[in-house]
Amino acid sequence: MESTVLRIHCEDRPGLVHNITGVLYRHRLNIISNDEFVERNENHFFMRTAFSGAFDSDAIMAELKQALPGNIDITLNTGKRRDIVIFASKEYHCLSDLLIRQAFAELNATVRCVVSNHNNLKELTEKFNIPFHYVPHEGKSREAHESEVRDLIRKYDPEFLVLAKYMRVLSPDFVSHFSNRIINIHHSFLPAFVGANPYAQAYERGVKIIGATAHFVNDNLDEGPIIAQSVIPVGHSQSAKEMALAGKDVEKIVLAKALKLVLEDRVFVYKNKTIIFD
Amino acid sequence: MESTVLRIHCEDRPGLVHNITGVLYRHRLNIISNDEFVERNENHFFMRTAFSGAFDSDAIMAELKQALPGNIDITLNTGKRRDIVIFASKEYHCLSDLLIRQAFAELNATVRCVVSNHNNLKELTEKFNIPFHYVPHEGKSREAHESEVRDLIRKYDPEFLVLAKYMRVLSPDFVSHFSNRIINIHHSFLPAFVGANPYAQAYERGVKIIGATAHFVNDNLDEGPIIAQSVIPVGHSQSAKEMALAGKDVEKIVLAKALKLVLEDRVFVYKNKTIIFD
Amino acid sequence: MESTVLRIHCEDRPGLVHNITGVLYRHRLNIISNDEFVERNENHFFMRTAFSGAFDSDAIMAELKQALPGNIDITLNTGKRRDIVIFASKEYHCLSDLLIRQAFAELNATVRCVVSNHNNLKELTEKFNIPFHYVPHEGKSREAHESEVRDLIRKYDPEFLVLAKYMRVLSPDFVSHFSNRIINIHHSFLPAFVGANPYAQAYERGVKIIGATAHFVNDNLDEGPIIAQSVIPVGHSQSAKEMALAGKDVEKIVLAKALKLVLEDRVFVYKNKTIIFD
Amino acid sequence: MESTVLRIHCEDRPGLVHNITGVLYRHRLNIISNDEFVERNENHFFMRTAFSGAFDSDAIMAELKQALPGNIDITLNTGKRRDIVIFASKEYHCLSDLLIRQAFAELNATVRCVVSNHNNLKELTEKFNIPFHYVPHEGKSREAHESEVRDLIRKYDPEFLVLAKYMRVLSPDFVSHFSNRIINIHHSFLPAFVGANPYAQAYERGVKIIGATAHFVNDNLDEGPIIAQSVIPVGHSQSAKEMALAGKDVEKIVLAKALKLVLEDRVFVYKNKTIIFD
Repeated sequence: MESTVLRIHCEDRPGLVHNITGVLYRHRLNIISNDEFVERNENHFFMRTAFSGAFDSDAIMAELKQALPGNIDITLNTGKRRDIVIFASKEYHCLSDLLIRQAFAELNATVRCVVSNHNNLKELTEKFNIPFHYVPHEGKSREAHESEVRDLIRKYDPEFLVLAKYMRVLSPDFVSHFSNRIINIHHSFLPAFVGANPYAQAYERGVKIIGATAHFVNDNLDEGPIIAQSVIPVGHSQSAKEMALAGKDVEKIVLAKALKLVLEDRVFVYKNKTIIFD
Repeated sequence: MESTVLRIHCEDRPGLVHNITGVLYRHRLNIISNDEFVERNENHFFMRTAFSGAFDSDAIMAELKQALPGNIDITLNTGKRRDIVIFASKEYHCLSDLLIRQAFAELNATVRCVVSNHNNLKELTEKFNIPFHYVPHEGKSREAHESEVRDLIRKYDPEFLVLAKYMRVLSPDFVSHFSNRIINIHHSFLPAFVGANPYAQAYERGVKIIGATAHFVNDNLDEGPIIAQSVIPVGHSQSAKEMALAGKDVEKIVLAKALKLVLEDRVFVYKNKTIIFD
Repeated sequence: MESTVLRIHCEDRPGLVHNITGVLYRHRLNIISNDEFVERNENHFFMRTAFSGAFDSDAIMAELKQALPGNIDITLNTGKRRDIVIFASKEYHCLSDLLIRQAFAELNATVRCVVSNHNNLKELTEKFNIPFHYVPHEGKSREAHESEVRDLIRKYDPEFLVLAKYMRVLSPDFVSHFSNRIINIHHSFLPAFVGANPYAQAYERGVKIIGATAHFVNDNLDEGPIIAQSVIPVGHSQSAKEMALAGKDVEKIVLAKALKLVLEDRVFVYKNKTIIFD
Repeated sequence: MESTVLRIHCEDRPGLVHNITGVLYRHRLNIISNDEFVERNENHFFMRTAFSGAFDSDAIMAELKQALPGNIDITLNTGKRRDIVIFASKEYHCLSDLLIRQAFAELNATVRCVVSNHNNLKELTEKFNIPFHYVPHEGKSREAHESEVRDLIRKYDPEFLVLAKYMRVLSPDFVSHFSNRIINIHHSFLPAFVGANPYAQAYERGVKIIGATAHFVNDNLDEGPIIAQSVIPVGHSQSAKEMALAGKDVEKIVLAKALKLVLEDRVFVYKNKTIIFD
């Protein structure tokens, strides 16, 4: 069904749901689903409403702003496909999983290109007729490399960047241009095993469960708002390498799940946490 | 926080959320959480609203009925503890888990008594100062046995009956007196392995996962609306007996989880399915 | 590490482990891992030993047969890659997942070709330089269609057939030529929802968990020995179609996991069950 | 079935399995199950064999030591019930779960007494006719308090101490008297959220999964060898307090599972990890 998603978050106060739904009602729009949540500690209100029916976007927005005076964050997304750019390094599993989903129209997004600091996934990417940009980082400052990447992707004007096992730390400056629009997959159950080689760390610690975490990227490595996590059992007989292999399947599924939630406008970010209506 | 739960379900039509929240707004009640769902195939609307604040129940109900003409199901529950009766047979794990939760005020309910067709859980039950009624079924017709049970529990006027591994099939007549108010735990992942000895069936079939299902009881054994399910992995090295032992932990946790959902007014039953706002 | 896998199963009797490991010890082979299991109800012994070192296969086999007189099943597999043929119909997710694993050398197998009764996955398959054989079934008897398929794959001499959402029921005659060598993925948590449209069945029943099952194919549809199962939670808000979409990820991961177990010689079939050393 | 468990671990070398099973074979003992594992990085061998039949323990041990010269760790446990002491503080859920299992003979152990630094679980414990020792810590040095506890439990001579949410850090001196014999439940998915208030930490971090970890206690808080872990999903709508409540069920099940593994002699500790044959 064709539907539009209205997302609002603002300071909580009485009558918000009543007033918001009143606007939709007067425009004779048909609510398909409605989710609200109030973060009591913060006195902050979140609402996601999917509705069907034809409407005048400007009129709706004007009425909502009138009905909800003050500082308020409103987005109104019709179901259009978003442009995304995928970043990868050497590992194939997350990238290939997304390329397949794109090829068979499972993602509500258009993968505009793949950017990588290595060249080995070029052939894979081009099989799917997606431009592959090899931007090596060797011999460049982080600033220079990121500048080159930014120049490159500017023409695609992506709404989201998806880091599909991109093994470079992004600078705060780079991140600031895509606030809450960069989705990363970290190969551990955060906050366990931040940083490099989480499977080696997991092996050393002798854990019985490993996992993966999809999160928005902020200035602090591995500390951005978490979108999705998943785990699998492991045992003493698995080497760090075998854990890493088993973990690949978790990583790709969690990243795809997080991206789906984001593309369906189900994820709000507030401070360093996510509110997810799924 | 003290809160009241308003539950409404009815045929879907435009403006329902707006009109319902309008009543609460006019009474200056503070919505804590709000969940709605529309079953599109059935064009049926479900809403659960938790709110705080003092109110005149009769006035609220009258206004809601005026605002929502037609056939509508409304309940308004203040946070009072419900009376429940637990039915058990010989197995201790579900009953004891509930008795412990009751003893430490984890359940928002009062266990008024335990009824059993066996006598071996009497000592356990009485440790917790709960009346235990032994109603043997031997030599009695199903009708006579159930009649005796019904006479016995009448004085407790329970809102819910919890079948904590009660190994007797209830007649449609008995069930009809407690429509959608009897919660059973079945020791399989329904609809796999209906009927007797599900662990033996699971062992025979060589499944790699077993589970448990909490559901409301209807006229057809093991076919009532499902409230909660959970599973655990099993392997070739486990006998049917070992699967049954491992399954006990799943059973008790799933039953407690389902009961919690029901007692928090999070579960709607519509036709043979549940809508759960959790 | 290069390793060889010895698999033995036979009637249980005292001294089996001692005698088998004695042969390996005398040949100065280095046991890497050793798993045994005795199915007590059947008095049947299973053993899988991975070892390293150079050896004379004929000599080992001769000594084992001498040490273990009677009816015994022994296989000795060096780590060679097996030839497999994948069968598909219209759905892309399981096939593409296997093609990616093959392309990046994650499978210890060679996908010789893909056979399908539809043509829409031809382009995908050929991207990976795998022969794609379109064998439509329309207007043919099951016997004629299967005969055509068998003639086609004969030249590839596959050790295993992988049914990656192949939506045709295979005849007992076809199955008999590949006993315990056909691996199927069924899109439900068997034995729940056998037959067609399991997601529609799951939706109708209102289950809270759905799953997928990889199993060997035998004469009875959906009743062969189970290799692997996995599940995900679902809720009232998901339509049958959304459940099917969510289920795709479970299906592809479970099929790949089962295939990995089989290719690593970790799966024994005995009667209608599997013994899995993982 | 009555069975004896033989556990051996030592430096790996060729012929170990052959030689060990040879001793059992010569004594005409019937192997029920056999598990071995070699930690390649450490070149260390682990073996657990369950067997049935009558035997002369001294003779078996002598022959094993002769067959396996050098530094070797052998234990031979007939199925006798072990004595355990449970430590608790204020929380009821882990203690009550163990008391119920003890009362219905599910544990292969005898709970000799409960020790607590608080008094509120006395009534619960005594319902089950288990001695309850209240040893308050207020106004005492850690050394003095632990000394009092040690004097108290000396008469029970427990094989294992089970910390069922005992909220005191044990000193290295105390721990040294019960090396790899103290089992603790930590209320997080270690190594995430070490230290105090893990649920508050999990809430702050906005994780989507929480868990519990059962581990042996060593000198460093929350860093001992992990025995078992389990997790549950959480979401934005749950407060830290609700996460803690949901976590109780995970904690009690994981602790019971770990204790069962230990009591069945399935857990080896080597350096800071466990090898578990389950």
